[in-house]
Amino acid sequence: MHRIPVWSPPLTRFFHALLVVLCVGALPAHAQLVAPAGGACSTPVERWDYLELELKGPTAGNPFTDVALHARFTDGTTTVETPGFYDGEGVYRIRFMPPRPGRWTYETFANRWELTGKLGEFTVTPASEGNHGPVRVRATYHFAHEDGTPFKPVGTTIYSWLDAPEDWQELTLRTLASSPFNKARMLVTPQQNRFRDTFAPPRWPYEGTPPRDWDLARFNPDFFRHHERRLLQLRALGIEADLILFHPYGKAWGLDTLTPAQDERYLRYIVARFSALRNVWWSLANEHDFIRTKTDADWDRLFQIVRDADPYGHLRSIHNGKLIYNHTHPWVTHASIQHQAAPRTPAAAQLFRDVYRKPVVYDEVEYEGDFTARWGRLSPEEMVHRFWCGTVAGTYVSHGDIYKTPEKDAWISFGGELGGTSAPRLAFLRRILEEGPRDGLDPVDKWWDPDTAGVGGRHYLVYFGHDTPREWAFRLFRAGVADGQRYRVEIIDTWAMTITPVAGEFVTKRQDNYHYREAAGRAVALPGRAGMALRITRLDEAPAAPPARQPED
Amino acid sequence: MHRIPVWSPPLTRFFHALLVVLCVGALPAHAQLVAPAGGACSTPVERWDYLELELKGPTAGNPFTDVALHARFTDGTTTVETPGFYDGEGVYRIRFMPPRPGRWTYETFANRWELTGKLGEFTVTPASEGNHGPVRVRATYHFAHEDGTPFKPVGTTIYSWLDAPEDWQELTLRTLASSPFNKARMLVTPQQNRFRDTFAPPRWPYEGTPPRDWDLARFNPDFFRHHERRLLQLRALGIEADLILFHPYGKAWGLDTLTPAQDERYLRYIVARFSALRNVWWSLANEHDFIRTKTDADWDRLFQIVRDADPYGHLRSIHNGKLIYNHTHPWVTHASIQHQAAPRTPAAAQLFRDVYRKPVVYDEVEYEGDFTARWGRLSPEEMVHRFWCGTVAGTYVSHGDIYKTPEKDAWISFGGELGGTSAPRLAFLRRILEEGPRDGLDPVDKWWDPDTAGVGGRHYLVYFGHDTPREWAFRLFRAGVADGQRYRVEIIDTWAMTITPVAGEFVTKRQDNYHYREAAGRAVALPGRAGMALRITRLDEAPAAPPARQPED
Repeated sequence: MHRIPVWSPPLTRFFHALLVVLCVGALPAHAQLVAPAGGACSTPVERWDYLELELKGPTAGNPFTDVALHARFTDGTTTVETPGFYDGEGVYRIRFMPPRPGRWTYETFANRWELTGKLGEFTVTPASEGNHGPVRVRATYHFAHEDGTPFKPVGTTIYSWLDAPEDWQELTLRTLASSPFNKARMLVTPQQNRFRDTFAPPRWPYEGTPPRDWDLARFNPDFFRHHERRLLQLRALGIEADLILFHPYGKAWGLDTLTPAQDERYLRYIVARFSALRNVWWSLANEHDFIRTKTDADWDRLFQIVRDADPYGHLRSIHNGKLIYNHTHPWVTHASIQHQAAPRTPAAAQLFRDVYRKPVVYDEVEYEGDFTARWGRLSPEEMVHRFWCGTVAGTYVSHGDIYKTPEKDAWISFGGELGGTSAPRLAFLRRILEEGPRDGLDPVDKWWDPDTAGVGGRHYLVYFGHDTPREWAFRLFRAGVADGQRYRVEIIDTWAMTITPVAGEFVTKRQDNYHYREAAGRAVALPGRAGMALRITRLDEAPAAPPARQPED
Repeated sequence: MHRIPVWSPPLTRFFHALLVVLCVGALPAHAQLVAPAGGACSTPVERWDYLELELKGPTAGNPFTDVALHARFTDGTTTVETPGFYDGEGVYRIRFMPPRPGRWTYETFANRWELTGKLGEFTVTPASEGNHGPVRVRATYHFAHEDGTPFKPVGTTIYSWLDAPEDWQELTLRTLASSPFNKARMLVTPQQNRFRDTFAPPRWPYEGTPPRDWDLARFNPDFFRHHERRLLQLRALGIEADLILFHPYGKAWGLDTLTPAQDERYLRYIVARFSALRNVWWSLANEHDFIRTKTDADWDRLFQIVRDADPYGHLRSIHNGKLIYNHTHPWVTHASIQHQAAPRTPAAAQLFRDVYRKPVVYDEVEYEGDFTARWGRLSPEEMVHRFWCGTVAGTYVSHGDIYKTPEKDAWISFGGELGGTSAPRLAFLRRILEEGPRDGLDPVDKWWDPDTAGVGGRHYLVYFGHDTPREWAFRLFRAGVADGQRYRVEIIDTWAMTITPVAGEFVTKRQDNYHYREAAGRAVALPGRAGMALRITRLDEAPAAPPARQPED
């Protein structure tokens, strides 16, 4: 049984040593760890941490394909069936992330006598500080941890950091620890890369080496154990791991020409190993439509395999190249979108919300960098701008950074250090997000005023983008607003990272059927620079109930 | 049997008298029109026109609910089953729109002896000039008639013209005849309206008067006969009738609180009556989400009723208020969208294409007018701008016109005459659409250059919108382009309706990995006004094959 205590307040994360406590009972380590019927693990496991049953079993034949193993966990009210997996050398494991504190029991089921019918019980303690559970969809368009703690994604992209040299991986973790990023997209399997002389994959997911000496029916447990160690380190940093299960960048190794049965086995193995880590998200693919060997129907099927295999309902999406997957499918929890046009303005960025009625995450908006390809040339200012566009649209944005040198590839490929300067500004934005409405920011006057987000009558964020106004005449849409409400206005410089309060209060007075102005006609003076925003906060007490449904026009 | 010869070339339509030829054989008119087994109609029917079987049947009980009637038509290869309907006074009808010329036979089926087992045969002749068949989806994002003739929608909105006073309806038809509009959205059932003193509904869809003296189990055939007459007149004008089956504007009459069985009966009656008219489109609702008595699941069900009942597969969509329906459902043929934000820029307007992979029609983009509500205040210039945004985005736009006076309601309500001045500019745009690529305009460099549409290497339309450039440096995206291609450039003034050729040819020369410039560095001088566009056409022969799939970036 593993217990990994984690405490990671936002923006002040640091490394924690991994404290691993094995539930051994009276049995020697590496022996069968399942207690006999009525037996109990001596060390309790924490809610949303995970317990691991270790079982000794057969080595004959191909344990990866021949042995079926799972366990049923129950506290008398909730029952969770979790798949087991073969970890090599005769060792089988079943992991369980308890959803609730209390007394839990389990029973194993297998098609082998050595593995089936094992019973045991154990105690689950409440989550410790900083452990908020897996991230779920909240309020249609947003996210929160299972304990209700809001989760406002500020993501980044480090596709192949998991197979960079070890010291480089450590460097990446240090960079992440001091970054604003609370979600990272990464490939599970290696990608081809011109820097592979420097960054040769140290491990392969299957036994042998690709493409000819691979045994696609036998996984390489060491590959996955390494991933797990890194995922636990991300968990300790409070970073969600957006795991990309398929990608089009491994053609030379045959990664995109596995059979449907091989794809399914691969997915089930990953889910069995990783799903007990609460910080895991499933991204079925990167640029899924560039994998010309799979159709939309294939993705539908693979999505459903993951959904049905995962006992915990981790978030699921898929990231597109040129053709967007149908995110309205019920097995998609949120829309993960690559788009170069939409996040350039809040008006365009908001459109996908209405289509999907799910959280929208622009997981690729081009990368900050000085690359030759046009998708890797964003200025830091433009990267920050796109984050703000997405924010005011009621969506989320992920960062990528591609400043290459002849000696090394960039952050988006192997991690390491950031080349750009957007990160501190994204930390500033994350602070504003976390100080904002608990459920998240939504367009206040959808379609008519795309540059304003918030909660009508309570909290507003107005973003001016590339415009350089010298004045903003105070104006609020009618939703939630009445005469005589009092507001504070702050001027935000999204690049300089300053928040400047405007002196005095702003009092609402009805102007017409749609808008309220300031009673004395006050306006807000602005500096005439790009990248400015306003935060407008209600001063008198807002009603407890949320404002009524937005009126029809 | 009705035969309505129609000839309506685009933009030069005029009224045709309706020539109605009944297939009476040797039987007296209004007697049973079905020929005995082996009998034949003496007058052939034209492909995509319709044949009507008239049968005398029972009047006892409630024929609308008690009698089930349909016919099976076949030419030996294709079999079409079409529903019949009760038309009052003991008369039952079955209509059939033949999909192919040739010799056809039929047999009727009913749960009444008088109506079942009737056999006959008849001849279908090729379509006459101007009859291109029903409109279908073409090339994923576009439309064409069944004979392959492109259909480029330039729609308008005349919600309640079908229950305006008769002379007003005639006025509407005259306005339409001289307008650019080839599609009109209209409600089937009446809407409440403050001008109802002037424009009282002359007929009701059910027997009696609403809401208390209605018999919702008995339709009023006269109501539907009147609609059919008008729909045939639209057909003669080459105008597609986008029929809105439900709407939220008849609360006082109980139109939004029918039972599911009543809704279904209503839909089946409409489909049985109207589906043989080739110019019918089904719009399940206007502002569907404002009908608070129906859920998305209800709409799913109603869509499927229409799809399954309609033998001809007429186009189907649904129009939203604030919440967009899931147009990815397979029963939706195209996305009919109300949106105030998307059609303001091509960049935003194009986004729905990728989501739905279907034609996108912005059926409401606010209305041209001087109304008090903010959705009815577009300037004519802005209406034209939105059409151009939609066009360059590879989508389609519909027009609405709301200039009210104290005496009369506006075009969008009861038709009559147009108050605005966008229509000639929309005629000009329609001409440009029809001179453009046969399948339609698509973004050439999706997401990166949303202001350019066309077919790479062949034909381009570049729209500058509200920008007022004085020069455009010739530049084409690489798709379909190679060095040394020769192009003609024309300057389009979308408001003044002028097309001005630029002297000389433009020859391509590769600039970088993405773009081609003019070999001699030529630029196009522009007048510095808003609303300008360019049309760029290949002069040397383009290859027969379409350009390759757009390369990955």
